[in-house]
Amino acid sequence: MENFGTDEYFMRLALSEAKSAGEKGEIPVGAVIVGGGRIIARGHNLTETLQDVTAHAEMQSITSAAQCIGGKYLTDCTLYVTLEPCQMCAGAIYWAQISRVVWGADDPKRGYRAMGGHLHPKTTTTNGILATECEKLITDFFKNKR
Amino acid sequence: MENFGTDEYFMRLALSEAKSAGEKGEIPVGAVIVGGGRIIARGHNLTETLQDVTAHAEMQSITSAAQCIGGKYLTDCTLYVTLEPCQMCAGAIYWAQISRVVWGADDPKRGYRAMGGHLHPKTTTTNGILATECEKLITDFFKNKR
Repeated sequence: MENFGTDEYFMRLALSEAKSAGEKGEIPVGAVIVGGGRIIARGHNLTETLQDVTAHAEMQSITSAAQCIGGKYLTDCTLYVTLEPCQMCAGAIYWAQISRVVWGADDPKRGYRAMGGHLHPKTTTTNGILATECEKLITDFFKNKR
Repeated sequence: MENFGTDEYFMRLALSEAKSAGEKGEIPVGAVIVGGGRIIARGHNLTETLQDVTAHAEMQSITSAAQCIGGKYLTDCTLYVTLEPCQMCAGAIYWAQISRVVWGADDPKRGYRAMGGHLHPKTTTTNGILATECEKLITDFFKNKR
């Protein structure tokens, strides 16, 4: 296990969320939100289970983190997610003004950068953390589906 | 009241949802989803009440419509919303593959077109329906806030 508090450590937890999604037949994407050095929310994709397109890992974590801190702005928080956010999630990240977003695998087709979306101007990003593992989980999922 | 089934008729209902939001101290935006000629969902902005940035009128209506029809794709539905959707809502509309989106007032600053977002290529749009009323509700809300 990676050292506590590193990007790799928190991405490992997001990966474990992604695995939980995969075990339910969901596209395996997981997320974790960290605020004040503590994990304040976790979530994984539940779009099939809930039959709800809005139930992405990031959306659920943002809702959950806001409940945890008792406010909708997540200005001192970092969102870890195994896959580059889509434009919907980028929009939620924008409104919540999350300070930092860290993702694993890029999503060259449906990621917010390809779709033309924007994060908040104050949000910083880091990508490529445990990217190979994050991506493998998804490609294996679709391989097994065929 | 407008004739049943016209865009103006359904936008009038979305406006009534927007007013409900305003009465709660929320930015007055409302939405209605129509499928098979029936209203299958209604919603209004609840971001302050729920302290949740994801609680836009469109997001709640999309979740609610999917529950109503028992499936996450809204391919034969029209979403009526008083304000041009933001990139987050555009993303949800994209994933749900809503066939048609009708909005009242344009949002030149935070609307999905300004933010660079995309709807699904099969989605058609109409704007400007009861636009003056939709916009006045929002400008009056901010005037009263000052």
